[in-house]
Amino acid sequence: MLVVHVTTISDSFPLNSQEIEQSERNESTKRIKGKIPQKSVSNSHQVQNPILLQPPVNQSVAAIVFGDGSESRLYPLTKRRSEGAIPIASNYRLIDAVVSNCINSNINKIYAMTQFNSTSLNSHLSRAYSGAGLGKEGFVEVIAAYQSPEDQGWFKGTADAIRRCLWVLEEYPVVEFLILPGHHLYKMDYQKLIESHRNRKSDITIVASNGIAVRDEDPGFGVLKINAENQVMEYSMKSDREPHNYVAEALTRLSDSSYRCIPSMGIYLINRATMVNLLNKHFPKANYFGTEVIRGALSLGMKVDAYLFEGYWEDMKSIEAFYQANMKCIKNSNLGYNFCDRDSPVYTMPRYLPPTIVNDAIITDSVIGDGCILNRCKIKGTVVGMRTKIGDGTIIEDSVIMGSDVYQIEDDRESSIKSKSVPIGIGENTEIRKAIVDKNARIGKNVKIINKDNVEEGEREGSGYIISGRIMVVLRSAEIPDGSIL
Amino acid sequence: MLVVHVTTISDSFPLNSQEIEQSERNESTKRIKGKIPQKSVSNSHQVQNPILLQPPVNQSVAAIVFGDGSESRLYPLTKRRSEGAIPIASNYRLIDAVVSNCINSNINKIYAMTQFNSTSLNSHLSRAYSGAGLGKEGFVEVIAAYQSPEDQGWFKGTADAIRRCLWVLEEYPVVEFLILPGHHLYKMDYQKLIESHRNRKSDITIVASNGIAVRDEDPGFGVLKINAENQVMEYSMKSDREPHNYVAEALTRLSDSSYRCIPSMGIYLINRATMVNLLNKHFPKANYFGTEVIRGALSLGMKVDAYLFEGYWEDMKSIEAFYQANMKCIKNSNLGYNFCDRDSPVYTMPRYLPPTIVNDAIITDSVIGDGCILNRCKIKGTVVGMRTKIGDGTIIEDSVIMGSDVYQIEDDRESSIKSKSVPIGIGENTEIRKAIVDKNARIGKNVKIINKDNVEEGEREGSGYIISGRIMVVLRSAEIPDGSIL
Amino acid sequence: MLVVHVTTISDSFPLNSQEIEQSERNESTKRIKGKIPQKSVSNSHQVQNPILLQPPVNQSVAAIVFGDGSESRLYPLTKRRSEGAIPIASNYRLIDAVVSNCINSNINKIYAMTQFNSTSLNSHLSRAYSGAGLGKEGFVEVIAAYQSPEDQGWFKGTADAIRRCLWVLEEYPVVEFLILPGHHLYKMDYQKLIESHRNRKSDITIVASNGIAVRDEDPGFGVLKINAENQVMEYSMKSDREPHNYVAEALTRLSDSSYRCIPSMGIYLINRATMVNLLNKHFPKANYFGTEVIRGALSLGMKVDAYLFEGYWEDMKSIEAFYQANMKCIKNSNLGYNFCDRDSPVYTMPRYLPPTIVNDAIITDSVIGDGCILNRCKIKGTVVGMRTKIGDGTIIEDSVIMGSDVYQIEDDRESSIKSKSVPIGIGENTEIRKAIVDKNARIGKNVKIINKDNVEEGEREGSGYIISGRIMVVLRSAEIPDGSIL
Amino acid sequence: MLVVHVTTISDSFPLNSQEIEQSERNESTKRIKGKIPQKSVSNSHQVQNPILLQPPVNQSVAAIVFGDGSESRLYPLTKRRSEGAIPIASNYRLIDAVVSNCINSNINKIYAMTQFNSTSLNSHLSRAYSGAGLGKEGFVEVIAAYQSPEDQGWFKGTADAIRRCLWVLEEYPVVEFLILPGHHLYKMDYQKLIESHRNRKSDITIVASNGIAVRDEDPGFGVLKINAENQVMEYSMKSDREPHNYVAEALTRLSDSSYRCIPSMGIYLINRATMVNLLNKHFPKANYFGTEVIRGALSLGMKVDAYLFEGYWEDMKSIEAFYQANMKCIKNSNLGYNFCDRDSPVYTMPRYLPPTIVNDAIITDSVIGDGCILNRCKIKGTVVGMRTKIGDGTIIEDSVIMGSDVYQIEDDRESSIKSKSVPIGIGENTEIRKAIVDKNARIGKNVKIINKDNVEEGEREGSGYIISGRIMVVLRSAEIPDGSIL
Repeated sequence: MLVVHVTTISDSFPLNSQEIEQSERNESTKRIKGKIPQKSVSNSHQVQNPILLQPPVNQSVAAIVFGDGSESRLYPLTKRRSEGAIPIASNYRLIDAVVSNCINSNINKIYAMTQFNSTSLNSHLSRAYSGAGLGKEGFVEVIAAYQSPEDQGWFKGTADAIRRCLWVLEEYPVVEFLILPGHHLYKMDYQKLIESHRNRKSDITIVASNGIAVRDEDPGFGVLKINAENQVMEYSMKSDREPHNYVAEALTRLSDSSYRCIPSMGIYLINRATMVNLLNKHFPKANYFGTEVIRGALSLGMKVDAYLFEGYWEDMKSIEAFYQANMKCIKNSNLGYNFCDRDSPVYTMPRYLPPTIVNDAIITDSVIGDGCILNRCKIKGTVVGMRTKIGDGTIIEDSVIMGSDVYQIEDDRESSIKSKSVPIGIGENTEIRKAIVDKNARIGKNVKIINKDNVEEGEREGSGYIISGRIMVVLRSAEIPDGSIL
Repeated sequence: MLVVHVTTISDSFPLNSQEIEQSERNESTKRIKGKIPQKSVSNSHQVQNPILLQPPVNQSVAAIVFGDGSESRLYPLTKRRSEGAIPIASNYRLIDAVVSNCINSNINKIYAMTQFNSTSLNSHLSRAYSGAGLGKEGFVEVIAAYQSPEDQGWFKGTADAIRRCLWVLEEYPVVEFLILPGHHLYKMDYQKLIESHRNRKSDITIVASNGIAVRDEDPGFGVLKINAENQVMEYSMKSDREPHNYVAEALTRLSDSSYRCIPSMGIYLINRATMVNLLNKHFPKANYFGTEVIRGALSLGMKVDAYLFEGYWEDMKSIEAFYQANMKCIKNSNLGYNFCDRDSPVYTMPRYLPPTIVNDAIITDSVIGDGCILNRCKIKGTVVGMRTKIGDGTIIEDSVIMGSDVYQIEDDRESSIKSKSVPIGIGENTEIRKAIVDKNARIGKNVKIINKDNVEEGEREGSGYIISGRIMVVLRSAEIPDGSIL
Repeated sequence: MLVVHVTTISDSFPLNSQEIEQSERNESTKRIKGKIPQKSVSNSHQVQNPILLQPPVNQSVAAIVFGDGSESRLYPLTKRRSEGAIPIASNYRLIDAVVSNCINSNINKIYAMTQFNSTSLNSHLSRAYSGAGLGKEGFVEVIAAYQSPEDQGWFKGTADAIRRCLWVLEEYPVVEFLILPGHHLYKMDYQKLIESHRNRKSDITIVASNGIAVRDEDPGFGVLKINAENQVMEYSMKSDREPHNYVAEALTRLSDSSYRCIPSMGIYLINRATMVNLLNKHFPKANYFGTEVIRGALSLGMKVDAYLFEGYWEDMKSIEAFYQANMKCIKNSNLGYNFCDRDSPVYTMPRYLPPTIVNDAIITDSVIGDGCILNRCKIKGTVVGMRTKIGDGTIIEDSVIMGSDVYQIEDDRESSIKSKSVPIGIGENTEIRKAIVDKNARIGKNVKIINKDNVEEGEREGSGYIISGRIMVVLRSAEIPDGSIL
Repeated sequence: MLVVHVTTISDSFPLNSQEIEQSERNESTKRIKGKIPQKSVSNSHQVQNPILLQPPVNQSVAAIVFGDGSESRLYPLTKRRSEGAIPIASNYRLIDAVVSNCINSNINKIYAMTQFNSTSLNSHLSRAYSGAGLGKEGFVEVIAAYQSPEDQGWFKGTADAIRRCLWVLEEYPVVEFLILPGHHLYKMDYQKLIESHRNRKSDITIVASNGIAVRDEDPGFGVLKINAENQVMEYSMKSDREPHNYVAEALTRLSDSSYRCIPSMGIYLINRATMVNLLNKHFPKANYFGTEVIRGALSLGMKVDAYLFEGYWEDMKSIEAFYQANMKCIKNSNLGYNFCDRDSPVYTMPRYLPPTIVNDAIITDSVIGDGCILNRCKIKGTVVGMRTKIGDGTIIEDSVIMGSDVYQIEDDRESSIKSKSVPIGIGENTEIRKAIVDKNARIGKNVKIINKDNVEEGEREGSGYIISGRIMVVLRSAEIPDGSIL
């Protein structure tokens, strides 16, 4: 029997040989010169016999995960933690999705860069991923912003952060870096992205979403104008001030058959030498990777390609989006992110909690985390986090309860310090509807968290909560006294 | 302020100096000679200012845990595993109780000896306890029965097992060994036992239960006759053939004010040199530790003391006892073994399962393990193990469901091999009452496991279950076809 | 640019459809029928664009490693341990080579089967590989021989061991099993073997050594007669009684251009369903995998292929072979096994020992393990194991010193038990030449271990050593008193 | 036999009941009132029967380790890392000493606070201590300086850092915090400190050094004036501007029989409630713990006691001090810090490096780390770090070689980027005397690092080295070309 694979590889962009130094030139000379073929498409879904990646991904690719996004969007969930550390789906933290993608894609060198409220994220990552799970040569290394003799300031942006940490990032002789936002919820096999990048001999490959409309993307990751071969022609920013114009322009472009516009997901695969040169040599003042470095690479004539992604992708751009992502995971369907997929498991901090104790509960369309104590209560359409304690007669609907970090003990040690306070958990005869209750909150008895005045947006941080998009958000460790009606 | 501690130390038993070699003699000369005081009592509950143990427990005591008991008592739960590996309380294995006692008592050198169906136990111990949890110098080392040039046979008993493995057990220069049955459920701070042992300068200390009647103890661990100072005078076996005589005798003894009889719990603390000499020198043919070695030590005039324990203790002497131990853990009371105690946590294999998904369930007086999928069902008085899947319309009452090891995927890989079989879990419209359903069982739709003929004892292993004390026990990986009524 | 891969896949052996059940038939029907092409060769060295293995190796292949070989060959190194647990090259155990091959080949489900002197091996494996290194879904699970209600005996051979443990081995739905002897020293990327197996749609693939002469192979793994396509035609055993005849026959066969004979390395890759059927259905009484199961598979007409391996391979068939393997590793060349290869690292138990302290030593052509204490000594051509202590004036040449498990402390605790004994390590003014000194040996002062009478073979176990092939072998924990001249 | 322990407990300082809130008052009322006895001494060396600490240390004490000191003192070793991350004694990092003290003292909740060049430290701590070694409930949690909505700035000092992180530090309900500088080299059983603190019912206990002269202490930790009961009367700073005056004053005080001055070691044990109140209520603007918070506590009349420490203590106050600390560890004596002590082991990152390969070396009074490659060289009085490669004909004396992080491979991947550079390690025929060679340095052939002009202090950072106290310090990753003579 004879099997014939025909793989057509596009190549040859105009190199500016003056600007690209030796190491890059070496690489580029390896490329096979030729005309760009007209109908070659890099979409991974069409690859039937993928090539074994050489060198192997676990030795040649390192991921750089940004744990912080634009934190204000999810305030107050980000009051004490960065976006990546927000609990989701009872047992997880947001960043677990991206780190699990890496592990499931055989990428085991992961640098997590943080500077905003980094403590929870650092703690989670080092307990969840150090030692186990990443192979003997693997690691999740947290690089927190730091002062040094050369630079006393904070990271000024993604490009600045990478530039200042190049001495760490270059410790292992990887071939490509994969730059990832740490707060998005999606499943992707990055190996297909790497394969596409290597086959097309791209300098940079940007993941773009085929599945979402341009107007829905994560602000700040830009819009790509791509040609029929998915090569990126332009990188533009959606201006917040003139959204309508932008959308109009986007539609115009879409009508042009040979080019189209598509939102970037902020995921970049870039050759090491290329990245080092762009950051240190070509654009030593650039602070942001997308708007400055990528655009700069295009201006230098580098080969920047798009890799199209079609699956579920949630960028957590608001409290509402975060709430909906949780709501989707209680539905045992394939619509949202699948936390129970055996083939691409989601990793997180290992636990050895006792089982959930249920005294007398009616539970509908909900997920229940480990080690909860549920008394005579009714739970519907709700995500119940680890170690949540719910009192008799309490009703919870359409809510996200994040649970608590420790079991509270009513003993001498603690009572001497925190006497008379409402205990951690949710008290008796309380009613909670369409709310997010952050970790370690202390909700008293006979409380109603129901947005009684149907407020759209409200800032009541002094009282322990805010309202965002009609969703009640109770702050971490907040205390809601007995009998409160919110 | 003046604090006066008065500690009275009893001592001086008749040493047979001919028989006890140098190393023991060195120890014994350190003892302060004198008459046994009349009112000294070693009971730990009276100790108010315990002495800091010197040398520290984590450097000087090693535990030897026997993973196998008399397996036939819990058959068929022991068909594929030793007693210590039986799942209990949704998330745990029986041996976790004893290993957690060790860890919580700062004992971090733990040898687990096994030979009967040892695979599950070995796997659990090495995944749960290696690396983490025991400190850098700590370990749980599984010693499975093995063949060697000197001995081709299996272990012939507890004493034989220890003797053959002395070369391993002596690797670390510990001072005492703590010998433990691995299948009992109780919480004990062994540090108090060690303190009592050292204060009293005992050769051997045996833990005896003050809380249970002599007739209820684990068969095989013997009965101790102790004097007012809790020194052991005699070690006798409860003969299975004449239980009544025995009890009568026990009662007689109890009426004697200066001596009383109390059941041994099979827990021995013994000085290293003493153990080595007893096994190799004095009783080189002894196979059993209790009946042969302990009795022998008494016959040599060694100082054997009892340490009285008063808490909850369950020896799992039958399917019924195992069932009741599970039933007690669903009651959020202090009657049984407390799996949720923050001060003495129960350790086990760490997990990172997804949360339990509940579509529409009424759950009463039950505990639910991690990662279950509960559809439209009613659960009452039941222990639901990890990854249990329960179908629509199903009712489960007063049962122990052990769950499953993996999520079953209906994909090509597996369907090619296991096509058409009932899937793992519990099917739709099924009814289960007073049953133990072992791991990975496949219960079909419209099944009734209700002991319909109210059988007391039944052996239906060919059909995938047995009946013991009216409790239905479905075997591990058994398949109960749709529509079966048992 | 156009790249054309032409892969020619050989297929179609005569299926005995009566005997091979459904699951196998499903697989075989997937094969593309056709004539065997004349010039197809499976040798991995010719594959230029290897196919990405689907399903991924880390989900679809489990390794079964046999920790025991024929122990008597390496006696007395196997007196207290199985072959796989023998220390080699200062810091390693023999089995690390095979387990590291697995890890470096992305195989992370490893079952280690043992029954002979298994304790050291179990301890090493669970400390070295549990938790870290194997990814979240990976494990090294030790399956020690055990008694069960169905079978009270020891494993009767490799096939019997696998058959009795199928219920464990089938826990994960792997596609193929890789069966490995645990005591061989070689580096192999098993992924290439798996790729060849899948491309050729073999039922069983046997690794055969192209690099060694037929007369040098590990006795017991047999000789393969293969055709030009590397398909196995016959599996025969080298009879110990008529070696000359055998070699003669082999040479005869080699002269035949279309067939040749090549030694099996005892490494088998086999489809799961095939293995289950062979063990349970076709040959339920077979005890040995090679001689009985493989031969049986050939007799059933299954497709058994050979995969040729050309690198360094050492089967440790004698004390002499073990000694030479150590000697090779002190030469910083590429002749032997490379323990320092960054691309295929050798894993072992992690350590955090202090650095080696050297007071005044002349060291030539040697390797020195972690945490040694070397006083005024001369070391030449020697492997010095971890924690070795060498006294002033001592000379060691051409030897293997295995080191010790713990640092000995001269304190009260230990002196009370082991007073006056020679301390662990090598004393002052001692001379050791061409010797293997096993772990924890206590060599006194002014000792000469030089095989003074130039004995070829000698059994002096009572004196703490034996002589094998003129190599002096000092036993584990043996004590050689001051002034001894051996 | 009757043993009488007489423990006299001093107490009763003037409480300012207005200022100390409920929780403290509860504690203080538990104290037994009375006059301070005249002869009570807290020195731990006199304690013969230490009390078992209640509550247990591993549940009730958390350590706060500061990874940064005043970094400029050890520049350029701190150019890319904080003081705690400096390699020492071949296999360790400086912070391992303090973390090992914690582990050996049963303190398993360790927070490491960093902001200066924190990456190396974070990486080391999370690889060395997460997971293993600290028990299931233990952790080393790195708290890097971070931005939050409330505070955009860096930590302004030790007190500010703790105050801003109280929300993390209070996660576990500990009773006391132990505040530790992370860059000191000493062994201390903190349990004795805790015992003294609890017995004396101190608010704060400060460790002071009995073994060093006042003028030698770490600048910035202050000097304590203590009375005969070791209670602290005054806390003063040694002013850098007027050292002579200070010493004069100190001597004056020492002549006063009832008071004496003693240097603080910067180690504080403080009750949780006390610390929270001092930081948040009494001194919310204080930035430094010693000069502001401790002094403030004294001014409030709190009970501040000194705990005297007498062992080896090195504060690494200069390159010279760091060099000498290394030199001491090559002498197998008890003068310096003992890295090989089995009873109080020093923990660090576990490794599984190959053994050190020695081709032909004469090694005198040196320590050799794991995995070195030593060719035909002479090494004397030198600390050789992990993976050091030394060429033929090279001589190294009285130096500290830190080794390298990875083995360099001369392959395509790396040569494309770093072509023609001097390889990592020390080249042939090179001579190094009295030097510190930082990690990953590339020293060429025929180099002489001998301080040829006998310079006392020199800044040649552009050439890859500096000179400090006549010690040559080659920078991390510096390249010293072939033939250089420094």
